Amino acid sequence: MRFYSYDQLFNFSKSVFLSIGCSEEDATLATTVLLSADLRGVDSHGIARLSGYVRLWEAKRVNATPEIKILHETPSTATVDGDSGLGLVVAPKAMQIAIDKAKNVGTGWVSVQNSNHFGIAGYHAMMALKEDMIGICMTNASPLVAPTFSIERLLGTNPICVAIPAGQQPAFVADLATTTAANGKLEILQRKSEEAPIGWIQNKEGKSSTDPHELKSGGALLPLGGDREHGSHKGYALGAVVDIFSAILSGANYGPWVPPFPAYVPMPTNMPGKGIGHFFGAMRIDAFRPAEEFKRHMDNWIERFRSAKTAEGFERVIIPGDPEREAEAERREKGIPVLEPVVADLKSLAQKFNLSMTV
Amino acid sequence: MRFYSYDQLFNFSKSVFLSIGCSEEDATLATTVLLSADLRGVDSHGIARLSGYVRLWEAKRVNATPEIKILHETPSTATVDGDSGLGLVVAPKAMQIAIDKAKNVGTGWVSVQNSNHFGIAGYHAMMALKEDMIGICMTNASPLVAPTFSIERLLGTNPICVAIPAGQQPAFVADLATTTAANGKLEILQRKSEEAPIGWIQNKEGKSSTDPHELKSGGALLPLGGDREHGSHKGYALGAVVDIFSAILSGANYGPWVPPFPAYVPMPTNMPGKGIGHFFGAMRIDAFRPAEEFKRHMDNWIERFRSAKTAEGFERVIIPGDPEREAEAERREKGIPVLEPVVADLKSLAQKFNLSMTV
Repeated sequence: MRFYSYDQLFNFSKSVFLSIGCSEEDATLATTVLLSADLRGVDSHGIARLSGYVRLWEAKRVNATPEIKILHETPSTATVDGDSGLGLVVAPKAMQIAIDKAKNVGTGWVSVQNSNHFGIAGYHAMMALKEDMIGICMTNASPLVAPTFSIERLLGTNPICVAIPAGQQPAFVADLATTTAANGKLEILQRKSEEAPIGWIQNKEGKSSTDPHELKSGGALLPLGGDREHGSHKGYALGAVVDIFSAILSGANYGPWVPPFPAYVPMPTNMPGKGIGHFFGAMRIDAFRPAEEFKRHMDNWIERFRSAKTAEGFERVIIPGDPEREAEAERREKGIPVLEPVVADLKSLAQKFNLSMTV
Repeated sequence: MRFYSYDQLFNFSKSVFLSIGCSEEDATLATTVLLSADLRGVDSHGIARLSGYVRLWEAKRVNATPEIKILHETPSTATVDGDSGLGLVVAPKAMQIAIDKAKNVGTGWVSVQNSNHFGIAGYHAMMALKEDMIGICMTNASPLVAPTFSIERLLGTNPICVAIPAGQQPAFVADLATTTAANGKLEILQRKSEEAPIGWIQNKEGKSSTDPHELKSGGALLPLGGDREHGSHKGYALGAVVDIFSAILSGANYGPWVPPFPAYVPMPTNMPGKGIGHFFGAMRIDAFRPAEEFKRHMDNWIERFRSAKTAEGFERVIIPGDPEREAEAERREKGIPVLEPVVADLKSLAQKFNLSMTV
């Protein structure tokens, strides 16, 4: 593992996006979104994926110069065509449309087709915070998750993020995959060859398994809850809602037809839509009550929960967003840790594009 | 257990609501909402609660003749004061406001303060279906749930319902408490003196417990996920979002200050808001794409998931809403089963209000 400063990684990542043909503006935006994952401690979704985005571009599945278009709109909604652009670029632009609509009529809701993976949901939802709005963001993803009772992978880890502004307290930011564990957590266990807890994965027969490599042999991730007795039908339902809002409202692919992130995985056949889908929402606080009043009560809520009595062995009750904010403070100061295989990946990108940038 | 026809229970329930002073219109509406729970097989939220609503009225915590007012609005939002009315009446009226706003500007979002328990979330969300809209409904509830790492009960079972129209297929209706198990499930185990599965409840020290009576001695329900390793921080975050949308946007009570349903439980002190809070949303399908197109893809989604290969021992993959719709078909034909203690409750209501109605 090596440590890089945010600026080092920023300059390198931006030069890679410029190399594949992104405009100056889009390369900056894509880099900002990508690295927000590394800053916030979500290492699976940051610089580690840079080479993956490049491979999607090489496979002609990402358009580096998309023309992002509104296909249909009302005062509070829009359907957006991402023109096969990087999700890292399409998503913040679509979220901005939601925010602009909220400025006009109180809330804005945007469903996006024809996009690609968009980094962490948190970045886009949090765009609303500085406008005194609540931000909502979801996306579907390639199928790794079996619905309750099934052995087929029909849903992605389909995350939901809700970002809510507070006053003196930092914002509340819940960013969660609708599975027991996100795929990134499984990848960590795979690298360490450690067992997964019961309730994370099943094998190809649908039996509970602790083998983190199970997905390679037909297994699946499990919806939040793990099994029926522990509420997996709820995780499945939430993942399904994300899929439907992101893709059936917009005209993207859904369920088992969502395109894979790894460029070497062939595309599904008989795809019913275009690309992957996202869904964004922005709600102006003062469309409901004065923002200062709301924030005072949010502070009270956060203070009450943060000071709640803990069970023995636990130091404090965590407010959603705390761990990521603390990671960001630390990493901005001490740098961002990058695993050796990812460093090697970046070096080969530097070589491929003949970048003088050292990594 | 005895079986009653829907009409028998309807006439009786309506006469009780009339007896506490509801208008003809409100008594009909409250009864329709209340009994939708019994029809859909959610016995914990239906006629079994009728005497509980009456006790709240006796304790002057429910106003039988509320003046429901819009406190603040924009083209796509409203904040509603329920005037301490029955949630069974306040909620469908607030949902209607959301639907009307969606007709005008594409979507409508309504946060409600000063209300009471509203029956099942499903009824209100499903009001959107006949308008070719997606319906969303949530409510906070009195604190029974401990956030991850805590031993304090700070959240209710805070349900989320999302109802989505389809074409030939029946609608998708996900209606879920943000806990591993709803309180109604625990009540069933209490009556049978059976053990609860691990992951549903904890004791007052925050240790996992299988005793369904644990809540009486300081224990708590657990957020969906059960423990940190299985994603309880996600269930906690979802329950928190429901609390904030329902109560901090509207000015209702939140967290540990939400008033209890049983009238004999004293009210919390230093309450920061008014009554309990709800949140409603309606999104017009054709604000995103033509409704017929959407419904064709929803049918495709539902058919694909319903026909997914099952694990051994399971007959089929369930689409959210299937079990409740099947219960309704059966109960409309064969009648609604009512447990003997509930029958006794209804008999004493008949006596109290001198109702000639036989139950």
